Amino acid sequence: MSKHKLALAVHGGAGTILRSLLTPELDREYRDELEAALKIGWTILEKGGSSMDCVEQTVCSLEDFPLFNAGRGSVFTHEGKNEMDASIMDGRKLRAGSIAFVKNVKNPIKLARLVMERTPHVFLAAAGADEFAKETGVEMADDDYFFTEHRYRQLLRAREEGRVHLDHDVSEPVATAAALTQPTDKPLGTVGAVACDANGDLAAATSTGGMTNKKFGRVGDTPLIGAGTYADSTTCAVSCTGHGEFFMLGVTAYDVAARMKYKGLGLVDSARETIDHLGEIGGEGGLIAVDALGNVTLPFNSEGMYRGFVTANGRVVTEIYRD
Amino acid sequence: MSKHKLALAVHGGAGTILRSLLTPELDREYRDELEAALKIGWTILEKGGSSMDCVEQTVCSLEDFPLFNAGRGSVFTHEGKNEMDASIMDGRKLRAGSIAFVKNVKNPIKLARLVMERTPHVFLAAAGADEFAKETGVEMADDDYFFTEHRYRQLLRAREEGRVHLDHDVSEPVATAAALTQPTDKPLGTVGAVACDANGDLAAATSTGGMTNKKFGRVGDTPLIGAGTYADSTTCAVSCTGHGEFFMLGVTAYDVAARMKYKGLGLVDSARETIDHLGEIGGEGGLIAVDALGNVTLPFNSEGMYRGFVTANGRVVTEIYRD
Repeated sequence: MSKHKLALAVHGGAGTILRSLLTPELDREYRDELEAALKIGWTILEKGGSSMDCVEQTVCSLEDFPLFNAGRGSVFTHEGKNEMDASIMDGRKLRAGSIAFVKNVKNPIKLARLVMERTPHVFLAAAGADEFAKETGVEMADDDYFFTEHRYRQLLRAREEGRVHLDHDVSEPVATAAALTQPTDKPLGTVGAVACDANGDLAAATSTGGMTNKKFGRVGDTPLIGAGTYADSTTCAVSCTGHGEFFMLGVTAYDVAARMKYKGLGLVDSARETIDHLGEIGGEGGLIAVDALGNVTLPFNSEGMYRGFVTANGRVVTEIYRD
Repeated sequence: MSKHKLALAVHGGAGTILRSLLTPELDREYRDELEAALKIGWTILEKGGSSMDCVEQTVCSLEDFPLFNAGRGSVFTHEGKNEMDASIMDGRKLRAGSIAFVKNVKNPIKLARLVMERTPHVFLAAAGADEFAKETGVEMADDDYFFTEHRYRQLLRAREEGRVHLDHDVSEPVATAAALTQPTDKPLGTVGAVACDANGDLAAATSTGGMTNKKFGRVGDTPLIGAGTYADSTTCAVSCTGHGEFFMLGVTAYDVAARMKYKGLGLVDSARETIDHLGEIGGEGGLIAVDALGNVTLPFNSEGMYRGFVTANGRVVTEIYRD
């Protein structure tokens, strides 16, 4: 059996991450978590595990970390609820599962995988998805688990000001990934993982806690196959993060694969062109992608992106800014 | 100003439409409605109206016709509700709006356009979308408007049998488009329109009433930009219909545009290849597409597709089967 080159990359959101607020301590905290998640995923790949198991477990770790906007660290909606979206795609079988607006599910990415494995559907949303969660017996968590003091204050402030966004406040004792971004109405902050396993099979997973103070049931790109997440073992696996509306209009995740398939470009050039196009239509953010040759790329057009990958010889690299 | 060749096509769902059940009277009824919708849209284009106004009004006509599974004729969910999805995309501005799970909105396609025009978002769903509908003042209709006897009996029968699908019953006095399909768990039946206006600008719109007896908040391809609907004036406008899950996995609507952009294919070849690929991954259905040269194509791999288009000299053509 020809053993393929393994590959793994993760992200924890992209945007304008204020350098003045990212203290060395916080910088360390984010990098430690990115490293921890990468090590969990890499161990699975090294033991011969599937790329699907790898991205699921890697994203679970990122969801459990309270400072990223996903799972435990999800932001509050206008109604003071945590509503979460996630999607996962199996590039070997070209199958996928996704969920939107689920509440109290400890690891939304696990529920997305259950949609793929236990239903004839790809995408379940809202109350129906919550009902499905209960039937599957997936691990739930009470409101307290998701209630983080700084997130809640973030909501109260946004609600007061009538703004819909992830905000920062220099006086906040604990800054989150989202809290380090500039005041903006762009929804930023998501986690994701992409992997290539020893069989050369690709998988992608993305998870988010949405927008602070969001109203009207806005759906972003994270749960949308082709927009926020895509995987096909014959081309690439992609997970996106940034201003979701533009990733939907650009069909960003699938666009990387389409440029490889139809234009004959390699992974790095395809992903670069896709992000250039995203910028042309006004979108800000980035993506992580791998192919079956073990190549990894992490392009973005925002000031920063929490991200990391594992090199061919097993070294873990984490980065936040462009250089 | 160089006046572009106008183009317009519509569909009313694709699937296995049983010839034994499609009486000459019903055949006439469907074709009459497809013709009526095409004439409404064509008049708008001939008067110099935009492709956006054209596809919106054309789809409104199809939504108002009680025998297609959209708007008035929407099927019932497991809970006995009508939940509707729709999306529209403006190929000139590369902007879009879509909604999912809305209730009591007379013309869901109008609400999708309002999402595009009045919010910074692309996609609103469930209770939030209903709330947005109320704020916009878009025309609502009470349950009776959507309550059609044959649809309700369809639900009762499906619920009894624990099946999730669009069914037929030879003893039904009034057969609907969905009722003429073979018993299957494939969700079929949607309406859509694509157009090219005198400026060479493209638009696409799609609307559906979902699946009979659906549970768990299943979202199909109709509201998803790139899957069920896509438009870019530099390539094509596409509206899809069929087994939605496969259109999501194939990112079908955008795939037609990607083959044009990156492979350099023309509209007809791109759309044909996209539908061939859909079949390869197990999907059944079809699509309608136009480009800025006024070309029209309506490929499908199911037994039939309710469809129609207007020729360059203004002749209206409607078809249901392959030949």
